[in-house]
Amino acid sequence: MVRLSVGAALEQPPAMRVSRLHGIRDLRLEKAPVPEPGPGQVLLRVASVGVCGSDVHYYLHGRIGTQIVTDPIVLGHEFSARVAALGPSVPQGSISDLYVGQLVAVDPAVSCMRCEQCLQGHPNLCPSVRFCGTPPIDGVLAEYTVMPAENCFPLPPEVDPIQGAMLEPLGIAIHSVDLAHLQPGNTVAVLGAGPIGLLIAAVARAAGASQIYMTEPLPYRLEFASEYVADFVLNPDDADIATRILDLTDGRGVDIAFEAAGAQDTPQQAAAVTRIGGKVIVTGIPAEEDTMILNASTIRRKGLTIKLVRRMKHTYPRAIRLVQSAAVDLSPLATHPFPLERVEEAFETVASYGDGVLRAMIQVSG
Amino acid sequence: MVRLSVGAALEQPPAMRVSRLHGIRDLRLEKAPVPEPGPGQVLLRVASVGVCGSDVHYYLHGRIGTQIVTDPIVLGHEFSARVAALGPSVPQGSISDLYVGQLVAVDPAVSCMRCEQCLQGHPNLCPSVRFCGTPPIDGVLAEYTVMPAENCFPLPPEVDPIQGAMLEPLGIAIHSVDLAHLQPGNTVAVLGAGPIGLLIAAVARAAGASQIYMTEPLPYRLEFASEYVADFVLNPDDADIATRILDLTDGRGVDIAFEAAGAQDTPQQAAAVTRIGGKVIVTGIPAEEDTMILNASTIRRKGLTIKLVRRMKHTYPRAIRLVQSAAVDLSPLATHPFPLERVEEAFETVASYGDGVLRAMIQVSG
Amino acid sequence: MVRLSVGAALEQPPAMRVSRLHGIRDLRLEKAPVPEPGPGQVLLRVASVGVCGSDVHYYLHGRIGTQIVTDPIVLGHEFSARVAALGPSVPQGSISDLYVGQLVAVDPAVSCMRCEQCLQGHPNLCPSVRFCGTPPIDGVLAEYTVMPAENCFPLPPEVDPIQGAMLEPLGIAIHSVDLAHLQPGNTVAVLGAGPIGLLIAAVARAAGASQIYMTEPLPYRLEFASEYVADFVLNPDDADIATRILDLTDGRGVDIAFEAAGAQDTPQQAAAVTRIGGKVIVTGIPAEEDTMILNASTIRRKGLTIKLVRRMKHTYPRAIRLVQSAAVDLSPLATHPFPLERVEEAFETVASYGDGVLRAMIQVSG
Amino acid sequence: MVRLSVGAALEQPPAMRVSRLHGIRDLRLEKAPVPEPGPGQVLLRVASVGVCGSDVHYYLHGRIGTQIVTDPIVLGHEFSARVAALGPSVPQGSISDLYVGQLVAVDPAVSCMRCEQCLQGHPNLCPSVRFCGTPPIDGVLAEYTVMPAENCFPLPPEVDPIQGAMLEPLGIAIHSVDLAHLQPGNTVAVLGAGPIGLLIAAVARAAGASQIYMTEPLPYRLEFASEYVADFVLNPDDADIATRILDLTDGRGVDIAFEAAGAQDTPQQAAAVTRIGGKVIVTGIPAEEDTMILNASTIRRKGLTIKLVRRMKHTYPRAIRLVQSAAVDLSPLATHPFPLERVEEAFETVASYGDGVLRAMIQVSG
Repeated sequence: MVRLSVGAALEQPPAMRVSRLHGIRDLRLEKAPVPEPGPGQVLLRVASVGVCGSDVHYYLHGRIGTQIVTDPIVLGHEFSARVAALGPSVPQGSISDLYVGQLVAVDPAVSCMRCEQCLQGHPNLCPSVRFCGTPPIDGVLAEYTVMPAENCFPLPPEVDPIQGAMLEPLGIAIHSVDLAHLQPGNTVAVLGAGPIGLLIAAVARAAGASQIYMTEPLPYRLEFASEYVADFVLNPDDADIATRILDLTDGRGVDIAFEAAGAQDTPQQAAAVTRIGGKVIVTGIPAEEDTMILNASTIRRKGLTIKLVRRMKHTYPRAIRLVQSAAVDLSPLATHPFPLERVEEAFETVASYGDGVLRAMIQVSG
Repeated sequence: MVRLSVGAALEQPPAMRVSRLHGIRDLRLEKAPVPEPGPGQVLLRVASVGVCGSDVHYYLHGRIGTQIVTDPIVLGHEFSARVAALGPSVPQGSISDLYVGQLVAVDPAVSCMRCEQCLQGHPNLCPSVRFCGTPPIDGVLAEYTVMPAENCFPLPPEVDPIQGAMLEPLGIAIHSVDLAHLQPGNTVAVLGAGPIGLLIAAVARAAGASQIYMTEPLPYRLEFASEYVADFVLNPDDADIATRILDLTDGRGVDIAFEAAGAQDTPQQAAAVTRIGGKVIVTGIPAEEDTMILNASTIRRKGLTIKLVRRMKHTYPRAIRLVQSAAVDLSPLATHPFPLERVEEAFETVASYGDGVLRAMIQVSG
Repeated sequence: MVRLSVGAALEQPPAMRVSRLHGIRDLRLEKAPVPEPGPGQVLLRVASVGVCGSDVHYYLHGRIGTQIVTDPIVLGHEFSARVAALGPSVPQGSISDLYVGQLVAVDPAVSCMRCEQCLQGHPNLCPSVRFCGTPPIDGVLAEYTVMPAENCFPLPPEVDPIQGAMLEPLGIAIHSVDLAHLQPGNTVAVLGAGPIGLLIAAVARAAGASQIYMTEPLPYRLEFASEYVADFVLNPDDADIATRILDLTDGRGVDIAFEAAGAQDTPQQAAAVTRIGGKVIVTGIPAEEDTMILNASTIRRKGLTIKLVRRMKHTYPRAIRLVQSAAVDLSPLATHPFPLERVEEAFETVASYGDGVLRAMIQVSG
Repeated sequence: MVRLSVGAALEQPPAMRVSRLHGIRDLRLEKAPVPEPGPGQVLLRVASVGVCGSDVHYYLHGRIGTQIVTDPIVLGHEFSARVAALGPSVPQGSISDLYVGQLVAVDPAVSCMRCEQCLQGHPNLCPSVRFCGTPPIDGVLAEYTVMPAENCFPLPPEVDPIQGAMLEPLGIAIHSVDLAHLQPGNTVAVLGAGPIGLLIAAVARAAGASQIYMTEPLPYRLEFASEYVADFVLNPDDADIATRILDLTDGRGVDIAFEAAGAQDTPQQAAAVTRIGGKVIVTGIPAEEDTMILNASTIRRKGLTIKLVRRMKHTYPRAIRLVQSAAVDLSPLATHPFPLERVEEAFETVASYGDGVLRAMIQVSG
């Protein structure tokens, strides 16, 4: 690839295609002007965009809790892209080392960098974060977008655009495992075998987990989990999860339980399968009005630690290395590719849990 | 005091008085033989015994959850004592350095020292622990008792028998603060101003907490808290706790919230007053059938860590130093002294929350 | 005090006095134009400036290691100030809430906020930090200076300008204690009773340290330490430090040893007095060419953890609360006040270790 | 295998062969009575014994520092064995679940379980530890030995006797990685490619390390490292280690450096290749009189954490799972098998660093 001098840009078309949500189940492919990168920003030609459960939630319900779609919005936040142009004063050499034509994974969160959380290194907890595809910020189901240069992470040859788009959910899995302080040889349960649960299990495996128990009510996901990463899979419709995992672990339970289902009963299941003195990591996103209900005496007697996962922090460099070194294999999770003009079909596929879908992947450009 | 040679013993009477619970609200002062210390044990002449909420719970209800009083039992586990005799093969010089006549504080928990938890340094989580005054193990509302030598911690002159008896609840407070990794200058809320809540606040203060908010519905306890340790006190009957503490902290909330009430609504209150990225430490003992109900979205958005406190570990040496150096003042909490023959009156006083009671203290010997 | 509207400014004089170092022991009081605050900056009327050991090192040697004074430079970085004017686009309401006339403590470090360290919340480790009074950045021994708004921390009425100036070294002490994860009731040794050692001891006390051993060869400092904070003081010229502290702790050693002397033999002394499994925190700044020499077998057998302290992070809010609540008393350390025109005398006093000097304090404005 | 009832025993011969060190390079194969297991002990038929560097040090020098071989001693402490008989009152069901004929890995350290370190879960730091094959405690280069039941860890079918013997050095590697809090995707340097360095690298890989740099002066070990686990290998005789690793990491250095050589210059090399804010883990055993010499300014500017590794704790269950699940492959390291009658040849082979030796393994029984 020809490496252009910094500040250079490939010639851009005057307009681009964009998929915009106008109402519940109303996604429209429209024309829009190609945005211009401001100071510190880069113009990105979007490559692959993963369809996240939260995208589908907006598509089906028009809201996630208090975040309500009032005006038409472009969804999408898990993505890779190629640098199309560098905006004024893009920092060189420090973090980015960006050049036109380069394939990058993009962190969709722009934190304020001024609040207590950001200053102390927890941008994932920034209350003023601007997040792609969350109202009222447009997302990246479009041919082009602009992002701050420091949100762009150059990808090595071993990481393709689809994997690049999946570094975002992989980052959530890494952050979940980080919070658990998982040690090699630990035993682990992951409740929920959707993409996040599967990635948590894959990262736990990469971090040395020796026995991974996964639970999931959808048979095709359970089967996938079994082939992809899990040592034991359990369907909660077939058996009492807690009883079974305690049996399988000679009554001890697992060192760490990850809740990755966002259901009403899974946090308490996680607590029930965790050993005395163990840790429960809650990554699943609950319904807005949900309560977490735990058996108070059980968790106290066990002296549990419960950590709630909110997005991720500082995971891109490590995520890239894990994929580059094949410690984590992302490709099997991208089950369903679609071109941009078939976004609606992609969303409906995910919504239906049909055809063995895990991650639908919108291929915006080659 | 004459220091007798090891192995020596003061002459013991043939029988002793003991207070035994025969049924709900049925405590009887009885005669019993003085026990003999086995290998590794010491005979203790009980000095002071604090009346803990759990003692009163057995007295009023005959059970705590699945722990049921089926046979008559001696209650009491917060105590100081004087060494009356050393059993065979009591280790010398290492941990104990015990001699006859010495005043000691006594850890009422005898852990198995063989299980995973004990071996890894968490005897507080031992599932096989034998605990004084918990069915079927007799407690120490008696003139004499025997305990393993390593459970006995010699007290320096600055720590009197009443303070010595309170090192046990102080240990729970220390362990709670340990779990929080409190840093000097942190802000803190303590929900519940019973003895445990007050001690948590006192230890938090000793650990450098700068602003301590305490909440409590009983006015006399709130008043005590205000004089003893708290910077701000709040009665949940007067105002919404969460709203008020968020107001007082300019919307930030506190770094750490300690739940020390064991009520149904206090865990969620604790979560509500904790800052983004903060910690909730749950020390209060819930009713057996209670659930912990938390607002799932709130705790996830904040990325909270929740830790459940189960007893304490390795706290006696530090507790002794904190009292010895006056960093923590235990004396004001021992509000009501009673002789052994008035144990029932002590229990009823605690049960009634009357007369400004915090800790009733049974003075078994001078 | 009249609170002016944001953007307002008190009228400034056209020129100001500044103390500039032109060579070794060559400080000159000069006239200079009052600087103008740029975007995001505030103009500060300097109140009090502490004379740090590093300032004196530049004064005496013209360098600290590889940082060499090549051009005339204004020294000084420990300071408080009053806001004289707000620059364009100073953020309001978020962190700063600054207004003209307000007394503030000022963090002298301007980190890049782009590097790995800054992003992860460790601005103290930023390799691109710009630090007041370190070549080639001018310091604050001047009537006015400009700083980013977010470096200014409003002081409550309980914290006066002199204490405000000392929040900077206090922050180093807080960071040192943070790194130690000090628990209430821990025992501590502090090697070196200069201002930093004394502040470490004071913060350790505020954090609940129960026994504080301090060592120092200068008798007046040892005496001060004894009155100010230490439980035991030891002069290394009188006795072998390690032997004595091990004796005093019944052979156990202390939980944590803080090295605050920057001498050749103090790190190993710190290791020697630390208990098995304990921690050694090295805060003292060594001579550039110094090596840290430790007895390899001793530190391995003990399984020690050694942490090196580099500046501090996120300490101002907590430092303010600790002074405000009187948990730490800074005033006794500011032993020698001088007006700006007598800066040289202040530096010579510190250099001479004469007249009981701990911190000389330049009073630039009232 | 027939599972005998507990308390049963296979018939033992009246005498056994044992290899005893009588002086420097004076190992003699002798007859000795088969020991009898006391209360809580088991009689073990030794299977495989690894020859550790410390064994060879005693063989060549008659001492390790202050631990001097004064009387003839049996060496050997890395071993697997089969249960030959259970002593009186061997605990059943709890930790051990031992039966006659069972293959077990054996922890060679018998800690006191009474001292502060043991009680707090750090038996590796017990100052009263009794350790097999360290004067004056006999080791296991013998056909039979007795050990406490709780030191015996049953092996699953996937772990053979040779691997079982290597769980001891693997435990040291696990403990080293534990102390580093290695996160998946971290970069790592391991200085020294002897068995311990190789195992640290293998565990680091199992824990998710993405780039592993290994340094070693012996070409055959460097070559082995390259094939076994390392991403980059460097010979310090060919190039300056620090310069090269900093180059290879774009100047950043590695997240964690493990010192596994025990040489004079490797600790400082480890510090030099570690990134700002990183960790140095020192596992190598230095010569007794050695000092650890570090560049004081460098380590302070980087704000490093340095941890010293002393044996290991609680690693056997996790070590077994890591080998069982093939996350770590121990077999390639057992390069040289010898029968008991050729122990001296084994020791000489290790001492010579000849013939590509890593671990010589004494096969005492089949």
